[in-house]
Amino acid sequence: MSELLTNTIKMIKPLDREAMAQAQVRQDMLTKPQGSLGRLEEISVQLAGIQARPLPQIKQKAIITMAGDHGVVAEKVGNWPQEVTAQMVYNFLGDGAGINVIARQVGARVIVVDMGVATELKAHPQLVSRRVAPGTRNMARGPAMTGEQAVKAIEAGIELVAAEAAQGLDIVGTGDMGIGNTTSSAAICAVMTRQAVDVVTGRGTGLSDEQLAHKVEVIKQTIKVNRPDPKNPLAVLAKLGGFEIGGLVGVMLGAAARRIPVAIDGFISGAAALIATALAPELKGYLFAAHLSAESGHRRLLEHLDLKPLINLEMRLGEGTGAALGIFLIEASARILAEMATFGEAGVSEKEE
Amino acid sequence: MSELLTNTIKMIKPLDREAMAQAQVRQDMLTKPQGSLGRLEEISVQLAGIQARPLPQIKQKAIITMAGDHGVVAEKVGNWPQEVTAQMVYNFLGDGAGINVIARQVGARVIVVDMGVATELKAHPQLVSRRVAPGTRNMARGPAMTGEQAVKAIEAGIELVAAEAAQGLDIVGTGDMGIGNTTSSAAICAVMTRQAVDVVTGRGTGLSDEQLAHKVEVIKQTIKVNRPDPKNPLAVLAKLGGFEIGGLVGVMLGAAARRIPVAIDGFISGAAALIATALAPELKGYLFAAHLSAESGHRRLLEHLDLKPLINLEMRLGEGTGAALGIFLIEASARILAEMATFGEAGVSEKEE
Repeated sequence: MSELLTNTIKMIKPLDREAMAQAQVRQDMLTKPQGSLGRLEEISVQLAGIQARPLPQIKQKAIITMAGDHGVVAEKVGNWPQEVTAQMVYNFLGDGAGINVIARQVGARVIVVDMGVATELKAHPQLVSRRVAPGTRNMARGPAMTGEQAVKAIEAGIELVAAEAAQGLDIVGTGDMGIGNTTSSAAICAVMTRQAVDVVTGRGTGLSDEQLAHKVEVIKQTIKVNRPDPKNPLAVLAKLGGFEIGGLVGVMLGAAARRIPVAIDGFISGAAALIATALAPELKGYLFAAHLSAESGHRRLLEHLDLKPLINLEMRLGEGTGAALGIFLIEASARILAEMATFGEAGVSEKEE
Repeated sequence: MSELLTNTIKMIKPLDREAMAQAQVRQDMLTKPQGSLGRLEEISVQLAGIQARPLPQIKQKAIITMAGDHGVVAEKVGNWPQEVTAQMVYNFLGDGAGINVIARQVGARVIVVDMGVATELKAHPQLVSRRVAPGTRNMARGPAMTGEQAVKAIEAGIELVAAEAAQGLDIVGTGDMGIGNTTSSAAICAVMTRQAVDVVTGRGTGLSDEQLAHKVEVIKQTIKVNRPDPKNPLAVLAKLGGFEIGGLVGVMLGAAARRIPVAIDGFISGAAALIATALAPELKGYLFAAHLSAESGHRRLLEHLDLKPLINLEMRLGEGTGAALGIFLIEASARILAEMATFGEAGVSEKEE
């Protein structure tokens, strides 16, 4: 491990119990039956623990959407051409994608990062270039990347979120783009959660039964060739990962190190969370599972992380779209805690015992 | 039935299939795998059918929060004093309640309506007074209100939503406040869904097992005394209802008559929806179940209405808080449809067949 990565992991501390206790006391004084705002109340208390203050705030918001290509597309695991990764990056930069629309509604900035798109991208003032390589190698034949590349990808995420934090950042959402990355994520998920490959492999952007069976076979072969060890999460990332997945590992670690909550998106972000929490178990308290993806392995993935999704709208787009919707609810929880009147302030009678 | 009510019901038309078809065509041209935004896509198409235009918009938003008191509190069905209804109305007017916070975040105006609070309320520029009477009578001993009062309550809702529509209204959320109103709603739910009373009766603002058993007994006695007939929804409202529930029936009918979508909140709004859809079956297409309430009867209620909730955060506050969160998601669906780029516009390749 590099010094930056080791130090970042060391910086991730347990949630602040004192701030959480104070937040809970206030939550119970607000003009509503105790507990009647359900999970919004719990979230506000968790936020207090993350931000280490009794009145957490969610004002500055960002989605970091990372793009990378996957050599495993050579095995025909999907039915979209690889050039779509680059085309969608231009779509993000042109404000035309799903994530742009939802982030605008939520008031979150979108940071678009080239972590390793196969096609050379034209420079753009909004494009952050942290290319590790022009796509990973075909993991069905050998490791997707070297150990050095895996660390480089994670470091890019750490540095990016640090730069965003310097500008002001109260919450970060993770997003991804990469043709072939549900294959990479399913492989990581199978290894890290110790589930059978067919249980955690889904249809991605829309595979037929036959195509799905082939995808499962490719992942099984990948695991056979690479022999990834779940006790060595960095090696799992190198063998099975994508550069965008590595980048998101770094975003999660870097955010938690700075006490910034993370709204994780769907299956690909979830795969990154499996690696990141294996590297730094304390990270778990900083994560919110924004939604349950329609991608079939996601439920098992979240169960393994012991995270309960906030939303279930059967979405499976990625890009950070689920994360952006989740950020809205997390912001609502912080506003409730900060802005609602207490029984005393409003002159409302309390429950009779 | 009054002329206003009859005419309003007649004005409720089926969804516009042509607008829905056009919305679906556009949805499938947007830069994402078809169906990958899950229920957000379906909602956008339903909105097109409601607003009768291929590009529906959700800009002007309102929550109508109606308050009323319930004579059945004399049977000790809850553990909050009746004066809390009035105190919470002042809290709404003072911007200190949960609904104020969430509506502000969503950009929705909150219309606070006195439909029949027991305590005489002080005038306030933001308070809409449509008092039918100072609380209903004790339904455990006889009808909660007269047939004329039931119609008057519904008409108030119709007129109110018409006034809001005149100012501009793209969606309305329903909200309630009334100590005792989960008892009234459970009684309506049992009758209209033909479920056993204990199956649809919940703990409201926090009853013990013993108190819950007593609440069930009171509702059983109420039904025995009143003999409500589910085929006569107006009589069910009169016998078991609250003035705020009647008002919300009117809001739903009046909105649908003007092709305005309705985000229904939790259990009390759901009880109003049971009455309203029985009066006007076409209304169903105009309703969105914003969330699944933690109140135990709500799941059965929504199943009866064949509505699938958008959110499940174990909330049970009422006021329109769930509706306001739901409106955010409904707005997201409209924005997606209107603002995302198509494959052609963005120069993104489509799926290979």
